[in-house]
Amino acid sequence: MTSSEVEIPVVAFEPGRWGDPAAPMHLSDSVRGALTMLGIDGTEPPRAAPSIAPGRADADALAALRATGAGVADDDEARRRHLRGYSTPDLLKFRAGDGTDAPDVVVTPDAADQVAAVLAVCVERGLTLSPFAGGTSVTGGLAPERARPVVALDLRGLTGLLDLDETSQVATFAAGTRLPEAERLLGERGFELGHFPQSYEGATIGGCAVTRSAGQSSIGYGRFDEMVVGLSIATPLGAAEIGTAPKSAAGPDLRQLFLGSEGALGVVTAVRVRVHPVPAVRRFYGWRFPDFAAGAAAMRVLAQGSVRPTVLRLSDEAETGLNLANPGAAGQAAVGGCLMIAGFEGDEVDVDCRDGYVSARLVELGGAFLGEEPGEAWRAGRFRGPYLRDPLLDVGALVETLETVTFWSNLERLKADVTAAITGALGDQGTPAVVMCHISHVYPTGASLYFTVISKALDDPLAQWGRAKEAANAAIRAAGASITHHHAVGTDHRSTYLQEIGDVQLTALRAVKDALDPQGVLNPGILLP
Amino acid sequence: MTSSEVEIPVVAFEPGRWGDPAAPMHLSDSVRGALTMLGIDGTEPPRAAPSIAPGRADADALAALRATGAGVADDDEARRRHLRGYSTPDLLKFRAGDGTDAPDVVVTPDAADQVAAVLAVCVERGLTLSPFAGGTSVTGGLAPERARPVVALDLRGLTGLLDLDETSQVATFAAGTRLPEAERLLGERGFELGHFPQSYEGATIGGCAVTRSAGQSSIGYGRFDEMVVGLSIATPLGAAEIGTAPKSAAGPDLRQLFLGSEGALGVVTAVRVRVHPVPAVRRFYGWRFPDFAAGAAAMRVLAQGSVRPTVLRLSDEAETGLNLANPGAAGQAAVGGCLMIAGFEGDEVDVDCRDGYVSARLVELGGAFLGEEPGEAWRAGRFRGPYLRDPLLDVGALVETLETVTFWSNLERLKADVTAAITGALGDQGTPAVVMCHISHVYPTGASLYFTVISKALDDPLAQWGRAKEAANAAIRAAGASITHHHAVGTDHRSTYLQEIGDVQLTALRAVKDALDPQGVLNPGILLP
Repeated sequence: MTSSEVEIPVVAFEPGRWGDPAAPMHLSDSVRGALTMLGIDGTEPPRAAPSIAPGRADADALAALRATGAGVADDDEARRRHLRGYSTPDLLKFRAGDGTDAPDVVVTPDAADQVAAVLAVCVERGLTLSPFAGGTSVTGGLAPERARPVVALDLRGLTGLLDLDETSQVATFAAGTRLPEAERLLGERGFELGHFPQSYEGATIGGCAVTRSAGQSSIGYGRFDEMVVGLSIATPLGAAEIGTAPKSAAGPDLRQLFLGSEGALGVVTAVRVRVHPVPAVRRFYGWRFPDFAAGAAAMRVLAQGSVRPTVLRLSDEAETGLNLANPGAAGQAAVGGCLMIAGFEGDEVDVDCRDGYVSARLVELGGAFLGEEPGEAWRAGRFRGPYLRDPLLDVGALVETLETVTFWSNLERLKADVTAAITGALGDQGTPAVVMCHISHVYPTGASLYFTVISKALDDPLAQWGRAKEAANAAIRAAGASITHHHAVGTDHRSTYLQEIGDVQLTALRAVKDALDPQGVLNPGILLP
Repeated sequence: MTSSEVEIPVVAFEPGRWGDPAAPMHLSDSVRGALTMLGIDGTEPPRAAPSIAPGRADADALAALRATGAGVADDDEARRRHLRGYSTPDLLKFRAGDGTDAPDVVVTPDAADQVAAVLAVCVERGLTLSPFAGGTSVTGGLAPERARPVVALDLRGLTGLLDLDETSQVATFAAGTRLPEAERLLGERGFELGHFPQSYEGATIGGCAVTRSAGQSSIGYGRFDEMVVGLSIATPLGAAEIGTAPKSAAGPDLRQLFLGSEGALGVVTAVRVRVHPVPAVRRFYGWRFPDFAAGAAAMRVLAQGSVRPTVLRLSDEAETGLNLANPGAAGQAAVGGCLMIAGFEGDEVDVDCRDGYVSARLVELGGAFLGEEPGEAWRAGRFRGPYLRDPLLDVGALVETLETVTFWSNLERLKADVTAAITGALGDQGTPAVVMCHISHVYPTGASLYFTVISKALDDPLAQWGRAKEAANAAIRAAGASITHHHAVGTDHRSTYLQEIGDVQLTALRAVKDALDPQGVLNPGILLP
């Protein structure tokens, strides 16, 4: 079948609730029934509207910010709309009426030179600058230290396709362009980006760059950090254009210093990124494997070979049993075993070639072909999973996700250890947990693991989850895996991240930070302490 | 056909002359005949043995270095063997008897802890430390500033396969392992690296990492910087293990800061690198395209698609005409047009799949199939091209290569501009030049260009080439391309490199350098001023 993703509208998420407000999800009776097994009885926890304290930016600062030409707002509503991101702790704080992390002022530039001017004002006046891209952080990436007044720099006014080099298949986007808008603009020219993180509806091009986003087609089109060929960055020292050629041996690849820098080293204002022609053919299949080990081994064979699908993911037994790969049918009868999705995009001959090879290998490796229906169901619901969280919180469940990445030889151990850490930490609090897992990103040498946790919420769900998260982080570190595969560091992963990189690397990174941002204006506390 | 590369012996290059001394190349009559058209009459330029001044390391320093347990030598012969690399200017200086860049002492550790100890001695005593890996630099990467006594740290004693994770397909090598030795060790376990730069016979694993080497199978197995998953580094601040997982969103990818760092930020002591099973099948074909533009367009289609060969290269009309893709037959009758080599490695089914797809596309795109003979001839001679340079210098030719990389849309302009710059600069000196070119590395968004230049040597060939190189560098910079695709920066590309990265990036890099190496012990003048 042929289709495009451009029908996805550019929507504004409401603060405190994930996704398109016009398209909420509701829990089915089968999900509600399943929840009772965890002791979740459907009682809604108490809620309060977030209380926003008066902004701390003084009149001179506001005037200086206004003089840049950017929009400036310090009303409660604007600040509430830039209050944290969408981790479960963020949502729980929002529901508890905690508005303490609200920025003091919200600035909305619509040109790169305004970004530079705002940055200069912040340097001059000792204000903290916190870039706000899609606002979909799930790691505390929008809650910098608050020692100084915080300016949230909402980049979504920097939008548009600035250039398309059709020969090189390189598009230049303003950093605040949201992914659905990027696909719409490219689609008009016959191209697409093909970058589909679950936050697709809200995420921006610049946000994907600074957090090293990974999309559902990563085996086909690469991670976002692999797709980026160049960045335009505003820093307190001035602007920089980074990335001269696709690949180069001219020193360290400094793109890779700013990719993943989470607003701590500069503000990305434009991104040059690899694109491809809109595929003539898209085919998505379901496969059933008897167990997770067999499915993971099959993924490894494909990832280590030369002929690959465009999309490849595998749900474990628990996730398959709950139908989480098809959120609209969650809780309904599942296929059993472990569900794999393998998708192909390209021209007819290329897809035939890859489909033929991959399907034959999957049969050899123990897969049972389920046809296009499960593949298309997954594709139709590919951004809907996170929509289940809010209605689950509404009925007294505690729900969160976390993710990590390691080498293939360590994957089973990592999965077992993280699962045990979470179930142990929640079980110790009297709340047994269901922990589900999938592999959504594979490489020749390893793969990511994405966990979804459901338990009954206690009266202090923040503290309850905090203990589980801490146990999971410790298990990830002990297993020698990375604290994040695509959610980034923010504030939530910072301490584990520092253990992961060690003193020498921290010294190098801190030196760059101090050299480019000597006043420490940019996102203090995000990524680096 | 099935075969392995392990028959290539680990050879020691002689100083001042490229390659295995037991297998020199000689110029055929047809080459000698062709040279007369450039006014090259076969007269050998005068030569002198390099004069080595007394070493400047004092007895205390030598004793301290010896106390590390590493071998220490300051005799003329040891120092002459570590005198510069193998650029044509290096060879010309050697032939002119110029020994001024010889290190003052040569240290040969055989363990990583000795590297750390040597580094500590250099910090304590104000000695310059210059890592010597394969010694095959062609960009002045072995000639640091000489303000302080220079210790050449020859890493070739750090050799061996330290670990092989067969499941993850990751091998850990001591940094000084030479590539043929790495292949031999992996071959015993059924694996291979598949990294084949033209310096294969002399290059080391660590050298490939710090110079961002690219091998002839880069479209199949990636550049070396894409194959590396982890590095062990000794720095003046202590040792660091870099790279926790295949890919991660935990901050900037700091592997990419040390890859390409050319010994200026630390000494790489071990490298964890992606490997793959020894392919069951290897097929290499020749194809003829009517002209360079048609061949390049076909390469672009393949590079931008999902189904790719393992090797892909294209010689332009001039290089094809001189048969330079088959150095043993240089000067003999050629196929005409532009010769493309397309190679496939893998298992039978995978190679059939890719070969079928690629061959059909190449026919569609105007290629004429020439069968396996030209492919196998290229493969047999793949490391022999540089062997032609010394006998050419012997008969009074000036020969050098240089390379660059840019986006596809800029490739024709870049090729034309660099060619014009070189022919102009040499023509202006009364020495018309033949400039040949090939594409040996392609990416979805762009490709490298590799130029070979032949002209008649003047009495001061260093100055003569210097003017041509300067013109080429300026043309590369003016075209917005990178000053190097895989030869690295060294000293020769430093000034153009600084223009390429600009002030903000230089500030970041300089900050890392100053933080990790506050005394400036590591390779001063290499990469950074």
